[in-house]
Amino acid sequence: MHCDTLWTNVHLMTLQGDGLGVIADAELACLDGRIVHVGAAGSGAHLQPATRIDGEGRWISPGLIDCHTHLVYAGNRANEFEQRLQGVSYADIARAGGGIVSTVRATRAASHEELARQSRPRLLAMRAEGITTLEIKSGYGLTLDDERKQLQVARQLGMECSVHVVPTFLGAHAVPPGRDAQEYIDEVCKLMIPAIAAEGLAEAVDIFCENIAFSTVQAAQVFDAARAHGLAVKIHAEQLSNQHGAELAARHGALSADHIEHLDAAGIAAMAAAGTVAVLLPGAFYFTRDTTLPPIPALRAAGVPLALATDSNPGTSPLTSPLLAMNMGATLFRLTVDECIAGFTRNAARALGRAGRIGQLAVGMDADLAIWDIDAPADLVYRIGFNPLHARVVRGQLDPL
Amino acid sequence: MHCDTLWTNVHLMTLQGDGLGVIADAELACLDGRIVHVGAAGSGAHLQPATRIDGEGRWISPGLIDCHTHLVYAGNRANEFEQRLQGVSYADIARAGGGIVSTVRATRAASHEELARQSRPRLLAMRAEGITTLEIKSGYGLTLDDERKQLQVARQLGMECSVHVVPTFLGAHAVPPGRDAQEYIDEVCKLMIPAIAAEGLAEAVDIFCENIAFSTVQAAQVFDAARAHGLAVKIHAEQLSNQHGAELAARHGALSADHIEHLDAAGIAAMAAAGTVAVLLPGAFYFTRDTTLPPIPALRAAGVPLALATDSNPGTSPLTSPLLAMNMGATLFRLTVDECIAGFTRNAARALGRAGRIGQLAVGMDADLAIWDIDAPADLVYRIGFNPLHARVVRGQLDPL
Ligand SMILES: [Zn+2]
Ligand SMILES: [Zn+2]
Repeated sequence: MHCDTLWTNVHLMTLQGDGLGVIADAELACLDGRIVHVGAAGSGAHLQPATRIDGEGRWISPGLIDCHTHLVYAGNRANEFEQRLQGVSYADIARAGGGIVSTVRATRAASHEELARQSRPRLLAMRAEGITTLEIKSGYGLTLDDERKQLQVARQLGMECSVHVVPTFLGAHAVPPGRDAQEYIDEVCKLMIPAIAAEGLAEAVDIFCENIAFSTVQAAQVFDAARAHGLAVKIHAEQLSNQHGAELAARHGALSADHIEHLDAAGIAAMAAAGTVAVLLPGAFYFTRDTTLPPIPALRAAGVPLALATDSNPGTSPLTSPLLAMNMGATLFRLTVDECIAGFTRNAARALGRAGRIGQLAVGMDADLAIWDIDAPADLVYRIGFNPLHARVVRGQLDPL
Repeated sequence: MHCDTLWTNVHLMTLQGDGLGVIADAELACLDGRIVHVGAAGSGAHLQPATRIDGEGRWISPGLIDCHTHLVYAGNRANEFEQRLQGVSYADIARAGGGIVSTVRATRAASHEELARQSRPRLLAMRAEGITTLEIKSGYGLTLDDERKQLQVARQLGMECSVHVVPTFLGAHAVPPGRDAQEYIDEVCKLMIPAIAAEGLAEAVDIFCENIAFSTVQAAQVFDAARAHGLAVKIHAEQLSNQHGAELAARHGALSADHIEHLDAAGIAAMAAAGTVAVLLPGAFYFTRDTTLPPIPALRAAGVPLALATDSNPGTSPLTSPLLAMNMGATLFRLTVDECIAGFTRNAARALGRAGRIGQLAVGMDADLAIWDIDAPADLVYRIGFNPLHARVVRGQLDPL
């Protein structure tokens, strides 16, 4: 059988089954951007590859998937970080025009080109650590035009940098300055979601459900509008308090409920019943010095799939390292090595509604791979601030660093 | 006046004075590996540079200095990390031959070449983030020959990779398996320190003073031997409990006391009186999930210089990112931006006894520079897992990435 590329002398983390699905001393082949063979050493002897690559004992995992980021924005909030360390209060920073409002202001003011210029280095940092699929949310425009601009730039950067970008519409991120919350939600539902859906600019709709943002009643309204326009739904829920947003989202068939530090048993049961993925965001937990851990043992016991993500954003998680998010998942949340790696592959794919296509090494799946200079899978999680990526493969195409 | 290189259109963090010593819109020149001019835009008009470089608005800081690492070792303890996450106890891991003993075993078994091969990627990761000077401790050999091997490899890697390596002898890191502590300390003092000093393999002697390692009485013995052979002294002190090691070290004129989570007022006063630098290691604090913060407000009030370092080591801080150590210094220890940057430049130089030569941008100092693609100094501390280094300059020689 003909194939494009056959890797020999590699170890595989296939992510098939519940764990890492390791095949030591393995071979993998791809054709036309899909995986066509996964097996033990010698099992690909019948293949006639156009290119044969000796993996020299390296490890191959599915390309990493970051399923929750706010990567496209303009402006810089390092100054607020500095002020906070000098003892300035959040309230004083907000009064001086800081906080999310400053990101909205800068994002609205930026042209497409400027927004791309400022966001590109963050995407490249992700790519350098093996990311092949990246969710990017809007939510710093808060007008149809500015939300559209964010989503267009996200898509453009993905194509330019050979990263599959999955765009999510997060118009309901914050109440825009000077607007009434309900009036704005009505606009999100009646104007923005229909337009975004019609233009094919997003695959899912997200909302920040919190006492400082939007209510569960408003979330239900947004979910209904999303569903009516054929878009999937997800939610920022239970980060600061228990609003029962995850439960609501699960009942609406949400792909994921994200953050969920304050999730209760009813929320866990609803997520388990719906197959909603729990997306854990240890970068925000670390950066905001949160002390309330998500209920991981209970999520595990209930069989809720656990994903991990960077939550890359300027206010609460200026993190652009998926490997560091894995280490934080283990160090701060006590996830196992297998859970951390599944959280950036198999379960992240599920949180993006792509479980059948990416996140595992299996025949028929996309040939999106990360090739690592490591001794064992645990190296990806254990080290801090070290990048052992050898190369990415995107739809079968080798992309060396 | 002739010079080798003149950088124009740059912003400088000179680290002169107490803060960052910022000069916006500045120029800097070097000749024969030294800085010969630092000033405002146009102030270098009289210079006749062989090379003129437009910095395009970038920031230049002193090359970063990591003043506390255990970077040269063999073996991999990711498996222990994985086991710990699965609930295996430290005691069980130790009984199975894990812990520091496993690193000692692997380091002793490795040839010079193998030790260099395993350590090199860690040093390159440091270099990629702007490190120009790097302290490396021995302490995984615990025999004269194996300690010598570690120090030789450290020096060799530094020369090979264009990083100034400052070697420290840490024979008193742990009691070697099967040895009596006092008998071993006698050997450290009577055999090892004289030999290491005679061969010029280390500039300073360090000791791990803790109830699970060596006593203050043994530390005093080691310090006396070091002093008698012309070596500086430093100490791992007060990490797990208050042994009054920092106070003892300060009375011996120690360059630094490192960790010091459990330091008391007497220790702070002694360090202030002696000018001993406090080296803070937030990576170990993070990785071991420590909850006792070093007494930073009191150290500040007493005027003790604060340095920051990675403590890069396989057991408690597998960290190879100075920028992340800065973010952890701010996020976990509430150091200010200025303190984090001074901790990897001016005060790190002082902790290595090189205050007059590196760690600041000033006429006469070594032209070791880091050039950054950032908007402001706070960017170096605020971002997590992002490397904005544009280039290093080592003794006046540009070393692009
Ligand atoms: Zn988010
Ligand atoms: Zn140490």
